[in-house]
Amino acid sequence: MIEVIEVSPRDGLQNESVLLPTAAKVELIARAVAAGARRVEAVSFVRPDAVPAMADAETVMAGVERRPGVSYIGLVLNRRGFERAVAAGVDEVNVVVPVTETFSRRNQNAGAEDLMRMAEDVAARAVDAGMPCSVTFAVAFGCPFEGEVDPRRVVALAVRAARAGAGEVALADTIGVGVPAQVRSLVGAVREALAGVADPALRMHFHNTRNTGYANAVAAVDLGVTRLDASIGGIGGCPFAPRATGNIATEDLVYLLERSGLRTSLDLEQLVDTARFLGEALGRPVPALLPRAGGFPSPVPA
Amino acid sequence: MIEVIEVSPRDGLQNESVLLPTAAKVELIARAVAAGARRVEAVSFVRPDAVPAMADAETVMAGVERRPGVSYIGLVLNRRGFERAVAAGVDEVNVVVPVTETFSRRNQNAGAEDLMRMAEDVAARAVDAGMPCSVTFAVAFGCPFEGEVDPRRVVALAVRAARAGAGEVALADTIGVGVPAQVRSLVGAVREALAGVADPALRMHFHNTRNTGYANAVAAVDLGVTRLDASIGGIGGCPFAPRATGNIATEDLVYLLERSGLRTSLDLEQLVDTARFLGEALGRPVPALLPRAGGFPSPVPA
Repeated sequence: MIEVIEVSPRDGLQNESVLLPTAAKVELIARAVAAGARRVEAVSFVRPDAVPAMADAETVMAGVERRPGVSYIGLVLNRRGFERAVAAGVDEVNVVVPVTETFSRRNQNAGAEDLMRMAEDVAARAVDAGMPCSVTFAVAFGCPFEGEVDPRRVVALAVRAARAGAGEVALADTIGVGVPAQVRSLVGAVREALAGVADPALRMHFHNTRNTGYANAVAAVDLGVTRLDASIGGIGGCPFAPRATGNIATEDLVYLLERSGLRTSLDLEQLVDTARFLGEALGRPVPALLPRAGGFPSPVPA
Repeated sequence: MIEVIEVSPRDGLQNESVLLPTAAKVELIARAVAAGARRVEAVSFVRPDAVPAMADAETVMAGVERRPGVSYIGLVLNRRGFERAVAAGVDEVNVVVPVTETFSRRNQNAGAEDLMRMAEDVAARAVDAGMPCSVTFAVAFGCPFEGEVDPRRVVALAVRAARAGAGEVALADTIGVGVPAQVRSLVGAVREALAGVADPALRMHFHNTRNTGYANAVAAVDLGVTRLDASIGGIGGCPFAPRATGNIATEDLVYLLERSGLRTSLDLEQLVDTARFLGEALGRPVPALLPRAGGFPSPVPA
């Protein structure tokens, strides 16, 4: 069973130029859950002036009808965000830490070490509160400003996150530059280092910016990784490549996994329906290909 | 070294709704060669009334400036096509045989067994003429009419092609339904069967119709396959899914391979330039993503 974490409401919508009304976000989350998503990154508790697309986080969470067995995740960057997330009633938090100095300053207006310390602080608070906490390392496969990233830096930060109490560590190819060979070496190095410290689960977050995202997902699954982020419709884009495509699409990933004999909790037809809903809400066709091509051998109507 | 066979002039253009003038086809072939392509599927010698996009095959071949070390391939279906290909001066021929009865009748207006016999006849004539001959098995990963394809059928046909003298056998995912697990099982089965007969090279032809094409290419390369078809810009589409994307894109494949430490004969910047030329000639953005996203860490200007 591969667990596909649905990130369209947060990573997807945050990087779209069209702002969706709160009701559409609530509907997207409800549709993802109805399609079988069991973990949904629903909102982001960041400064509304920095990320206007997520300014209604509390209202979205208040509007979402909670389903048993489904975990609604809030992205946070610091103690203030964590407190908002707890108050809004999320089931778990995800802290994002870029692995390079320049990306940290440009994207989050703080130094990389400060952001890592904030993540450690949030992880410790989450442990105290009994709330699951993930730490996601952004630009772990390459940085748009600094270029290649030293895997040793990713490994060192992953170990710190595990020591701080994160139950899950995610490696994110934020700008979609990674290739399967890199997935193998980075996952191998991180796992080896974590084995001596703690045993957090490993989650992977791929973008399909350069058409390597699905190959990277396959490489991760072949290594035994069972947690993958994906976004219905493949929405999301990349803030550093304005015309590029976004996250790997949930429906395309599920097609690939299920045709490979792997199981997920998701229903392809409902995912494709939701991708169409999203395309209409955003006013443009989504990058995912299943909605255009149809399924096989059971056709999802194209 | 991975050999990337450039198929945009034939499989690419044949499935585009816009017909390019002969001069643009000649320029595309010249640009592909200048970018480093060493084998180019340049034209198709089929009935002009059946495939109007390829009606100028002889004129295209006459217009192409031949470069030493570059093989210009003509697609043929039968003896008549083979004779035209020889007269036009191609360096090698590629015979396409669908593996299912319904696809054979709908696409080539003949039974599958008749088409296979014609392929055997062409292969034998090519051997006599000292001309390299490939046989490509279409819809080897699934058929839009018959659904799942029995791998034993593909294996049996591949053995017949090898016995008839084909120096190369290609497995084509014509409608882009395959997944890496299927690549592994089909390549394994075909190789095992061919080992007892002859030793033709194995070439793979993937479409990215459902976002599995690049993952399939990686799976093939991991198995030691060194010959992959690709199309600059990812042009081509799929006649059975009109809004779907086409062949895997040469530039995206080369990015993936080279960033994985593998070598090709191709230059990424010239490929991206050619994709832009193709996009202008076809009047629409090509599906490839490198031209939109740029390279990494050496930026190809987006």
